[in-house]
Amino acid sequence: MHVFYTPDIRSNEYTLSEEESRHCTKVLRLGVGAHVYLIDGIGGLYKAEIVNEGKRQVLLQIIEVQREYQKRNHHLHIAIAPTKNIDRLEWFLEKATEIGIAEITPVICERSERKVVKEDRLYKVITSAVKQSLQAYHPVLNPQTSLAAFLKQSNQGIKMIAHCVDNAPRQFITDVIQPQQRYVILIGPEGDFTPAEIELALQNDYKPLTLGNTRLRTETAALAACFEVNYLNR
Amino acid sequence: MHVFYTPDIRSNEYTLSEEESRHCTKVLRLGVGAHVYLIDGIGGLYKAEIVNEGKRQVLLQIIEVQREYQKRNHHLHIAIAPTKNIDRLEWFLEKATEIGIAEITPVICERSERKVVKEDRLYKVITSAVKQSLQAYHPVLNPQTSLAAFLKQSNQGIKMIAHCVDNAPRQFITDVIQPQQRYVILIGPEGDFTPAEIELALQNDYKPLTLGNTRLRTETAALAACFEVNYLNR
Repeated sequence: MHVFYTPDIRSNEYTLSEEESRHCTKVLRLGVGAHVYLIDGIGGLYKAEIVNEGKRQVLLQIIEVQREYQKRNHHLHIAIAPTKNIDRLEWFLEKATEIGIAEITPVICERSERKVVKEDRLYKVITSAVKQSLQAYHPVLNPQTSLAAFLKQSNQGIKMIAHCVDNAPRQFITDVIQPQQRYVILIGPEGDFTPAEIELALQNDYKPLTLGNTRLRTETAALAACFEVNYLNR
Repeated sequence: MHVFYTPDIRSNEYTLSEEESRHCTKVLRLGVGAHVYLIDGIGGLYKAEIVNEGKRQVLLQIIEVQREYQKRNHHLHIAIAPTKNIDRLEWFLEKATEIGIAEITPVICERSERKVVKEDRLYKVITSAVKQSLQAYHPVLNPQTSLAAFLKQSNQGIKMIAHCVDNAPRQFITDVIQPQQRYVILIGPEGDFTPAEIELALQNDYKPLTLGNTRLRTETAALAACFEVNYLNR
């Protein structure tokens, strides 16, 4: 079943963009009468039928709507230092979207080798994972920010920072969180947060986390947190 | 700290291969007196010192040994249908190695679009993850096999098959396994196992699994199983 991301859907009819229309008719070879899924990104899953077919304009009629499709019982916000190799961050975004994440913020840290991300590119990766895994809710991608600025934000919920300082007191996520809450989890860059950054986070009520005793890459650590939060809310 | 994979280590001295020696002296710029880690892949983590330096031959003296370094309390064997895009399988191998896996078997299924994998290439991916995440145990990569042949093997432990047939009875891993055991988990190809394949697995005492209610890609499903087993054995 083919899926289109249609955040601008407003009525029981929808016209695909020129690009999507071409994709629909030329690549997917779909014609009048064929059924597709539409996702509005805010919980709506629509079943639609092609009622009018044109190379540049495919008109769809909504025949079924599900609101709050697979709505989650929690809100996970992961703030992650972009990886030096951007493929690794993109891989995380795809996997996190499949597994379940509500909000992502790229945070630039002292030891970040990458200081800039292309948000439109990252957003595309998320959208394609949303379609592939049939997620009715499109994760929010916030603009990149510095860690200092992020810590100043009034982030609601249970706040955590995952770091790798062995001798420092750290807890497992399962010992820190209660289910069905809002969570904010900070994941550091290659080389970890600096002691000063960790201290600043603790001062801002972020609880120190460990994700286990193996050395995890940035994107693996972030995904581990994502899996664990979803598991604990299952 | 630099890590070398040295499965052939036999004494308290070790000579790096010509390639590794060049890497050590030319790329890493390490000289006499510098310390490196050696991993033998069967639980041994060695701290070694460079005692003799040559472009083609670097001689190391073992100064510290840890046996059964971070030995796991369980044995996870994942049999996975290779993904059409091999990068996705390689990502899984890297991540699974970081998180913890003992044994991997590529299984070719009826709906597998990819019927052949390059085992040496996959092995290299695992080895580099072993070094990067400082795993003293190198996961075993078995030769690819057909699902039918795999099911005939006398795989020890708790056997499970993850599939996506909605109306079929399936359990979560957490409801199937006890900790500190041997586990075998089957992960199907894009398009899932066929009903006949699932039936055959059930006849061979594989318990049907669900990994949650979101549509997961093959490599994501395998990684989800890997995370969950490690979490339940923590």
